[in-house]
Amino acid sequence: MTKNHQIVLDNRPKGEATAANFKLVETDIAPLQDGQVLVRHHYLSLDPYMRGRMNDSKSYAASQPLGEVMIGGTVGEVVESRHPDYAAGDQVVGMGGWQNYSVVTATQPGVLRKVDTTHVPLSAYLGAVGMPGVTAYYGLVHIIDPKPGQTVTVTAASGAVGSAYAALAKARGCRVVGIAGGPDKCRYAVEELGFDACLDYREYNQDTYALAKALKEACPDGIDGHFENVGGWIMDAVMLRANAFSRMAVCGMIAGYDGQPLSMANPALILINRMRVEGFIVSEHMQVWPAALKELGSLVASGKLRARESVAEGLSAAPEAFLGMLKGQNFGKQLVKLV
Amino acid sequence: MTKNHQIVLDNRPKGEATAANFKLVETDIAPLQDGQVLVRHHYLSLDPYMRGRMNDSKSYAASQPLGEVMIGGTVGEVVESRHPDYAAGDQVVGMGGWQNYSVVTATQPGVLRKVDTTHVPLSAYLGAVGMPGVTAYYGLVHIIDPKPGQTVTVTAASGAVGSAYAALAKARGCRVVGIAGGPDKCRYAVEELGFDACLDYREYNQDTYALAKALKEACPDGIDGHFENVGGWIMDAVMLRANAFSRMAVCGMIAGYDGQPLSMANPALILINRMRVEGFIVSEHMQVWPAALKELGSLVASGKLRARESVAEGLSAAPEAFLGMLKGQNFGKQLVKLV
Repeated sequence: MTKNHQIVLDNRPKGEATAANFKLVETDIAPLQDGQVLVRHHYLSLDPYMRGRMNDSKSYAASQPLGEVMIGGTVGEVVESRHPDYAAGDQVVGMGGWQNYSVVTATQPGVLRKVDTTHVPLSAYLGAVGMPGVTAYYGLVHIIDPKPGQTVTVTAASGAVGSAYAALAKARGCRVVGIAGGPDKCRYAVEELGFDACLDYREYNQDTYALAKALKEACPDGIDGHFENVGGWIMDAVMLRANAFSRMAVCGMIAGYDGQPLSMANPALILINRMRVEGFIVSEHMQVWPAALKELGSLVASGKLRARESVAEGLSAAPEAFLGMLKGQNFGKQLVKLV
Repeated sequence: MTKNHQIVLDNRPKGEATAANFKLVETDIAPLQDGQVLVRHHYLSLDPYMRGRMNDSKSYAASQPLGEVMIGGTVGEVVESRHPDYAAGDQVVGMGGWQNYSVVTATQPGVLRKVDTTHVPLSAYLGAVGMPGVTAYYGLVHIIDPKPGQTVTVTAASGAVGSAYAALAKARGCRVVGIAGGPDKCRYAVEELGFDACLDYREYNQDTYALAKALKEACPDGIDGHFENVGGWIMDAVMLRANAFSRMAVCGMIAGYDGQPLSMANPALILINRMRVEGFIVSEHMQVWPAALKELGSLVASGKLRARESVAEGLSAAPEAFLGMLKGQNFGKQLVKLV
């Protein structure tokens, strides 16, 4: 009998997350019941939101229970099916978690979606044409809602969300400026992803005013919309350049996941600039997914969105790859290749 | 010839504003030209936004120029008119500033509005049925947009904006909870203004978590909408009790006007609670004024909105009354009676 391997949350981080918070376990795969499908995962997605779930504190998503398989998006192939809509060989995307196989009760709507890999590679359904892509779409299109010629910005610009954001913003006639960590990521953002400019925040040594000054040069007409993945002093700098009636989509505050909450230095700018600041979680807006996936699929198929991937090999590499991503050591969408 | 008296901004505050920032001057009243109207002011309105304009820094409104008459809303009576729409004896509301008389070029649309004092006292057009009332209306109706049964909160609850907010919220079937400074203001908010509860922030000694705990009792179903006039630790406490998809209308940050910007302790709550936080200035939303003034006028005429006024006597009393208001020493709408 085939064995499954899983990574479970063994204990909660005290401050920074470490590899010791995870445990690799071996389990048997139970025989399928009617309506169930066995999926072998080819790729596992690693995403910043997982760090929030590792804490016990109140967050938007339920805490990850101790001793259970870490949640996560997966793409793979159906190995065996007892559901009429799925057959062995189907390529599917789902939330299989940090494990090699998952048994999916496919009678629940939306848990498993068949995908076509003719023009879009399978792994892209975890990135540009998956949750990160739709996240960029919702923030840009539904919260920021930019007009052609407006300037929009994004932190973690070279990541999976930032990559899709740039392509979507260019398609809408915007100037799009990224903020990322390191010269390689910034060069990639401009040369490969289509950003009009990208600032390396590491050059500014946590000096909000120095970064704000650089933003003034990169965004001579100010900032009309911002997509926030990071929080802290970088967000403070962006707010200093925000235009009247600008919008800020708040998607992540990765800088504050490990410890004390990070403050916003000058919330009076929300009033002074008559800003709209809105937090969101893409899974609560399922109605936008079809339109978003259609546009994102077209951008990938036409080569206008060429998002880079960082690929770790094998399930046991997942914890270190995840911790590295939280520190910004990855480059583009972080995946774990399982097959 | 009748002399005019004016209060001009003589120099800018360094930190806290003081009476020495102002100067009382006597001037002649120039003869009217065609299209002009001479108004004798009966009441001058004192409002927190004026403190922001005294600074030279970037703000939403232009800085008050040095040596010019302090801007401000006024109600009064037409003394002489060379405009066909106005006649001596008309009661009018305008932006006459801190002076006894103003010469208004009435050909500019919107600068002077005739009002009816049959059911609404003249001074109310500076408060409940004026800019503060419409401010409450815009934030509550257009940003917070509460459903019946939802809980909405407001800081500076016993002030001109808070008074109107309570009446408008009760008319929409909401639970409305105020935050104010001192037991007298809180008692008045509940007994006279219709608040379901009012918390005296002075009892909590700038302890965000203690105030948040009290808010939990006063708002057992959480907070669906909040109207912010103050900022700082009180706003932080409200955010800890904000419900998913709650809205926060940011109208003022009076606590931070005198010095360094006040931070927001935990902006990640915007994400965790998927909040919408929106700053606004009521003068940028003139399209809502007619509907707002109509509802507010009805609430006053029917006795459902009985806003208190603090009335200082005489133009020379304006600076001290203004400074006292900034410290919360007034009770309800702060006016200066000039006739």
